[in-house]
Amino acid sequence: MVVGEFVTHKQVIVIGGGPGGYHAAIRAAQLGLEVLLVEKENVGGVCLNEGCIPSKLFAHSARQFRKMNSLIELGIRVDGAIDFDLALLQQRKKQVVERLSQGVEGLLDKHGVEVVQGRASFISSERIGVERGEAFDLYESDHVIISTGSDYSYPAEMQPDHQFILDAKSIYQVEELPTHLLIYGSDYLSLEAASAFSAFGTEVTIIMEEERTAFAYDSTINRELFRQLKKAKIKCVKQAKVHDVTASSEEVKIDLEVKGEFKSIRGSHLYVSAKPSPCVEELQLQVAGIDQLENGLIAANEAMETSVKGIYAVGDVTSYESLAVTAIRQGKVAAENCAGKSSVLDTAIIPHIIHFLQPVATAGLSEELAKELGYEIKTGHFPMRGNGYAEVLNEKNGFVKTVSEEDSGRLLGFHAVGEDAIGLINQGVLALEMVAREEDLASIFYPHPSLYEAWAESIEDMDSLAIHKG
Amino acid sequence: MVVGEFVTHKQVIVIGGGPGGYHAAIRAAQLGLEVLLVEKENVGGVCLNEGCIPSKLFAHSARQFRKMNSLIELGIRVDGAIDFDLALLQQRKKQVVERLSQGVEGLLDKHGVEVVQGRASFISSERIGVERGEAFDLYESDHVIISTGSDYSYPAEMQPDHQFILDAKSIYQVEELPTHLLIYGSDYLSLEAASAFSAFGTEVTIIMEEERTAFAYDSTINRELFRQLKKAKIKCVKQAKVHDVTASSEEVKIDLEVKGEFKSIRGSHLYVSAKPSPCVEELQLQVAGIDQLENGLIAANEAMETSVKGIYAVGDVTSYESLAVTAIRQGKVAAENCAGKSSVLDTAIIPHIIHFLQPVATAGLSEELAKELGYEIKTGHFPMRGNGYAEVLNEKNGFVKTVSEEDSGRLLGFHAVGEDAIGLINQGVLALEMVAREEDLASIFYPHPSLYEAWAESIEDMDSLAIHKG
Repeated sequence: MVVGEFVTHKQVIVIGGGPGGYHAAIRAAQLGLEVLLVEKENVGGVCLNEGCIPSKLFAHSARQFRKMNSLIELGIRVDGAIDFDLALLQQRKKQVVERLSQGVEGLLDKHGVEVVQGRASFISSERIGVERGEAFDLYESDHVIISTGSDYSYPAEMQPDHQFILDAKSIYQVEELPTHLLIYGSDYLSLEAASAFSAFGTEVTIIMEEERTAFAYDSTINRELFRQLKKAKIKCVKQAKVHDVTASSEEVKIDLEVKGEFKSIRGSHLYVSAKPSPCVEELQLQVAGIDQLENGLIAANEAMETSVKGIYAVGDVTSYESLAVTAIRQGKVAAENCAGKSSVLDTAIIPHIIHFLQPVATAGLSEELAKELGYEIKTGHFPMRGNGYAEVLNEKNGFVKTVSEEDSGRLLGFHAVGEDAIGLINQGVLALEMVAREEDLASIFYPHPSLYEAWAESIEDMDSLAIHKG
Repeated sequence: MVVGEFVTHKQVIVIGGGPGGYHAAIRAAQLGLEVLLVEKENVGGVCLNEGCIPSKLFAHSARQFRKMNSLIELGIRVDGAIDFDLALLQQRKKQVVERLSQGVEGLLDKHGVEVVQGRASFISSERIGVERGEAFDLYESDHVIISTGSDYSYPAEMQPDHQFILDAKSIYQVEELPTHLLIYGSDYLSLEAASAFSAFGTEVTIIMEEERTAFAYDSTINRELFRQLKKAKIKCVKQAKVHDVTASSEEVKIDLEVKGEFKSIRGSHLYVSAKPSPCVEELQLQVAGIDQLENGLIAANEAMETSVKGIYAVGDVTSYESLAVTAIRQGKVAAENCAGKSSVLDTAIIPHIIHFLQPVATAGLSEELAKELGYEIKTGHFPMRGNGYAEVLNEKNGFVKTVSEEDSGRLLGFHAVGEDAIGLINQGVLALEMVAREEDLASIFYPHPSLYEAWAESIEDMDSLAIHKG
């Protein structure tokens, strides 16, 4: 290895080019700083290359494929068979990922961010070394933003081979449709995989973890999720303690125990939901004196600054929720602070989305959590079958639910299931951030006819005043 | 005719069962009042039976039919021809209208609203007569809500025959696709008709009124509308003074003058955009002493009360914008006031929607209007091709645009074109109603990846800080 003789100075070094990192790099450059971005693989990170983008493309395709059954009532006649072809979708995925990667690279370039492919580590709290193949370059910088993301950590008996045992990345890389996909997990990633592959014709069985009897949502949403799973003929095994997994090209077999009863479940493939584990080992954080939390996560304050002044951490290496949306905001906050602004992260209201059989979106407090937190609450509920535009779309499944504080009428939670739930939730996020009250949502104008009128009806329902609730 | 001997007393009489009327009737009943609804044709009015609902169904079908071209990239293979069949869509329309009508009837019934089919007129300011075939019943009531809606008023030389010369109602009743549809008009209804029939294979030519060189939107939206028309090969003739129209089963011919030049345009059908004209003649308003404005509209204050105490007017008979969304709100306001509440109408922020080739949605001030009103403004613009989810959906046309007040950062206008523009606009409506500032929209969390992230980028663009703007 050749260690460079010179130390290059940069105003900001960003380590890791995922969503948190590239947003940080561009924002810092926009604010006039000279930025170096070190990335060991591809810019865009897991989100763009293997996670959010591929999974959303599969979800979109699944959704459209399901809609093909109701074309006839729109006056669209298809004279022939309609088939799903995974190879075509994989081809499109490659294209989309490539275009988006090139887009990010173009933006970094346009903003004058220097991008180096290599592995960064701290030499001291002031110096960073970057290993690029045979070369090892030395840098100094005024600010460092660590955004190296996470790897997955799997249950001991379910290590992916990425052939028969898959994870949230490799599931979207399969080249043949699994005939029977076993899914061990109950988070939104598990539900999205179940939904997409079920649409394409794969038999799906969800195996929920030992501690799980329901999903982690509002109780009304949980019931709806189980209803949807049943309707889609997706089996669901609750509270499963997995003892052993064997996998071969013949079958994947899981031996498990449910409430004292032992059984085996067989499928062609297993998807394993995993916990994120921060990618920090190579960084040599201790050399720089950066404090870590017990599980390896980097301690960062609301300005995203670590225990060392001028060194920031964003995204999955921090203790905030492992979501691209959080990493993006953290990246901007860190960059703005590098530029002398006083930015802070406020993660009070983050929308949670499932691109499910019917999409699910939620923001703020569930009915149960609001009660647990001591609020006296009112709830409203409006089924989409009462909405005129849902009849036009023939998308009458689903509902919206609102939670508010009894006395003040302050809105606390928004929950939506059904066509365009994801579109619906944005108004809820803003309402929560702006401390809106019931009348704020009940008295504004919604396009008519549209699904969005459902919020007003749900709020009117709190006082039994929903017009279209039968 | 048999005039009843008895005078029946009701707490509220609603005249007209369109969106304004049926919302008023149900809300009044919800608040404990005894309600009679008099409707001469079908509950749901023009909106449900002939207007909003049929047009949105056609728009939805057109949109889905256009999407059939890009199925292959979602991995969906169609082995055979894909055709549009108008008869199937008309069948579905009948079903949807029937279901929604039955829904409204069911709701009226559930709330104990008495519905009478007949024609109402004032006998005095206290008494109303209802003609039902041979019978003529007399009623007295504490409150009257007039919601008789509007008919269309057409240019003299373009009276619809509803066979070759069509209007906003009869266009969606055609049983064969026009081969070449001439559209005289430039409002959203004209644009929606152009968009739907163009998708189904009809050649479309838009003829804009003499005073029109552009549509009535923000200048950036107007440019986009013309771009979309051109791309869809829809011809557009601006500033046309129509001299004569002849129509037969052979052809429809329009003789017109454009900037001094005379020409004839030929098509198979003509759609005529019309102005609403209030349906008030039968009501005998003068008997009750109800003040009218010059054009026949009923004068109503912000409580929806007319010049006569206890008599209210809502919807197209009032001088407010002729939109179902306005009528609905007015109906609720009137009903609430009948029940002794103090409700007022605030029409500051009404979203305007076009279910167009690419949907268009706008709320608040255009750039031009904001300037005209004396605001010092900033604008932001973000093209959808910079949005990752737009790449996933392959819906990269369109943009969002935001307008804010320079000094305060207060948001004044939201404008969106493209996939899910209608979903996008709701957050804008709430932001405007709650007097949100730039940071309120720039710093909240949006689902990632989603089209909704575009608002934040548009606002960041005001300070050249949009991350994904190339």
